Amino acid sequence: MFDVRCQKLISEFGLRSLLNELDISKKKLTVAQAMAIAIYEAYQGAQRVSPNPLVGCVILDSHGQFLSKGHHEVYGQAHAEINALKGLDKEQLQDATMIVTLEPCAHVGKTGSCALQIKDLPVKRVIYGLVDPFHLVAGKGAQILRDSGKEAIVYADYVGMDNNGQESRLLNQQLEILAENFLKNSRAQKPFVALKWAQSLDGKMALKNYQSQWITGELSRTYAHYLRSIYDGLIVGSGTILQDNPKLNIRLENFSKESKLVIIDPEATVYKTFESLELSRYHKKENIFFIVDAKSASSAAVFDFSAQAPGAFKNILFLNRGTSGFFSMQDIYQFCFERGMKSLLVEGGPSLIHQCLKQNAFDRIYAFVAPILMGNGLGYTDELPITSMNQKMQFTALEKIELGDDLLVTGLNWTYCYPIG
Amino acid sequence: MFDVRCQKLISEFGLRSLLNELDISKKKLTVAQAMAIAIYEAYQGAQRVSPNPLVGCVILDSHGQFLSKGHHEVYGQAHAEINALKGLDKEQLQDATMIVTLEPCAHVGKTGSCALQIKDLPVKRVIYGLVDPFHLVAGKGAQILRDSGKEAIVYADYVGMDNNGQESRLLNQQLEILAENFLKNSRAQKPFVALKWAQSLDGKMALKNYQSQWITGELSRTYAHYLRSIYDGLIVGSGTILQDNPKLNIRLENFSKESKLVIIDPEATVYKTFESLELSRYHKKENIFFIVDAKSASSAAVFDFSAQAPGAFKNILFLNRGTSGFFSMQDIYQFCFERGMKSLLVEGGPSLIHQCLKQNAFDRIYAFVAPILMGNGLGYTDELPITSMNQKMQFTALEKIELGDDLLVTGLNWTYCYPIG
Repeated sequence: MFDVRCQKLISEFGLRSLLNELDISKKKLTVAQAMAIAIYEAYQGAQRVSPNPLVGCVILDSHGQFLSKGHHEVYGQAHAEINALKGLDKEQLQDATMIVTLEPCAHVGKTGSCALQIKDLPVKRVIYGLVDPFHLVAGKGAQILRDSGKEAIVYADYVGMDNNGQESRLLNQQLEILAENFLKNSRAQKPFVALKWAQSLDGKMALKNYQSQWITGELSRTYAHYLRSIYDGLIVGSGTILQDNPKLNIRLENFSKESKLVIIDPEATVYKTFESLELSRYHKKENIFFIVDAKSASSAAVFDFSAQAPGAFKNILFLNRGTSGFFSMQDIYQFCFERGMKSLLVEGGPSLIHQCLKQNAFDRIYAFVAPILMGNGLGYTDELPITSMNQKMQFTALEKIELGDDLLVTGLNWTYCYPIG
Repeated sequence: MFDVRCQKLISEFGLRSLLNELDISKKKLTVAQAMAIAIYEAYQGAQRVSPNPLVGCVILDSHGQFLSKGHHEVYGQAHAEINALKGLDKEQLQDATMIVTLEPCAHVGKTGSCALQIKDLPVKRVIYGLVDPFHLVAGKGAQILRDSGKEAIVYADYVGMDNNGQESRLLNQQLEILAENFLKNSRAQKPFVALKWAQSLDGKMALKNYQSQWITGELSRTYAHYLRSIYDGLIVGSGTILQDNPKLNIRLENFSKESKLVIIDPEATVYKTFESLELSRYHKKENIFFIVDAKSASSAAVFDFSAQAPGAFKNILFLNRGTSGFFSMQDIYQFCFERGMKSLLVEGGPSLIHQCLKQNAFDRIYAFVAPILMGNGLGYTDELPITSMNQKMQFTALEKIELGDDLLVTGLNWTYCYPIG
């Protein structure tokens, strides 16, 4: 599926005409074009490579003509560079240039070191988008290549430190966005968190009586399933579950994966009624994580887990609500991170989205906006106090895509993204 | 300026490549392409032809190759057909086809009858988009042409009654949209009314303290001035004026026109303080219209117009507020219509927009959406009761255009547009 995060890339670099195999074959490309294609290619792995980063690779021959491309397809399997090299012989690779979105790996992990494999090929140079953010290996892959007499140069240096061209700025931004999960994980030791919601033009997520089906159209809802498929874990509030009794699975053609599901369930209401809920039919218990108010847990008279609980749940986090009356979202994210969820999609619920906004605890938003008015319903910022226009919440690296009549707006948190850990 | 209403046309018919004079010259066009260009051309007159309709015309030679185009440019001056015919000789026009967005006029008005002028030319046929909606002359222009031995055929008939092709459906819709003001006027004897507002993604038009400058960016604000320039009258509420002290003039490069300004001023507060307000420096008094509560007017002790008023205002409508506590917007529109305002742009104010929505008294919306969150501010539907998703307010013929980081959403009222009068 088309990832909305590539949209700017496609339009700015005219990628549509370059993505056709026949059109691109032997075509002479600039390094910027090749990097743009490598980024686009990398997104093809979005559903299967976590917790590895998305990586794409394009190889140009000695004349700068397109030879091949590849991406990291599945976690634990071949890296992008190796996939791009497939089927090419040494003659074709003589003095070739490899353009990769991330520094080739130095370490021998599940699949062997890419740098060590490239070192023995007649490739002339490797231009890579970002230095490996893991500080213990940063620069080591490039060093292996340089030691074997090849050029190995990060894209920003290749275009020149003082290059303020729109093209290279856009590409650098897109390289960061491509690797946003991985960079957040490496730099901050925290999961990357995206908020997803559906709203009307007038900013409502539900009617006063909590009705919300359906705000958006079919294309938006399919795209929402794509989003579920590219994040490791899904966070929902108990209100949404008790109100809508949703399946919360991933419904995409030719795709099967079960997300980890994190349920913010202060009073343990979902926990206690789990077997009667639709979602019990679609999720293995080991993939479900409850966040319960420590007070509820301790008042055994009311919440007697041992007696009433279905028994098999092991993933329960008991948290105290803060002075604000709600949990710290960062505590929840940390709990998830430690359990292998490197990226999280929060699906509100007006009150859950409100909490994430209020706590400024998110990296990206996906707002699906339907061109309808829902009147005096429930907004998600109605209790978010903003008293001066200077305090308005802003987003950066915005993308907008039409999905039928709806519009998907996505962007990064203006203040929060990429704190250097 | 690019009119957002042509956007669908441009993308569906690939007009960008056809709008260049050099590229289109002698190019063979389909009737649909020619009609699309005629519509696009017609919009060029949007700022100057009211109360006449927007009309565009394309002429193809006997081989179907592009000869010329023209539009109605200024009220009282040459019609589109005459402008398109300029500079063409009889030889070029031999067996030519004229494609016009509206039936050529039959009557001799300010500029003579187009049908009578075309009748004497060697043109073979005229394909026109819409029948003249004014029932006294509907079909008469076409009849004059037919009587002189030419084909004269409305576009829907030309493509065939049973043609359900997307292309012809789109064109017919676009022809109606092009003529929306004129059609509303003719069919309903009412003005065409568009609502315009700026909002944040979360649906807020101002902070709780009424701050709202600036929600949208510069491109949006320039486009808002374009909108002012294409409507005959501008309706604003006293709240906006007293809060922001705006100029409410049209600020566009190389353009000067003074709109008629209708101020909904229940307590006559703006009326009484007019001379101290910024707008007094930008508007002639004869162009200002006040809507005042009849009760306020009659309590002379409080509102002594004769003593305090600046004196020169003649356009005051005294209205009773209905049981809802607000004026009937339709009464206000009728007052404007009778004073030559065939199209109106309502610039809210959350409460004025709310009233127009609540009374379902509008034909089109222009919502400028900035990708920011404004929190617990003022929405425009917070008191619009909607209790079932079936009651959601919808729009049709939607267009969305990116204006910098902002998005302009425009569409027609789903329930209200084109009531047959």
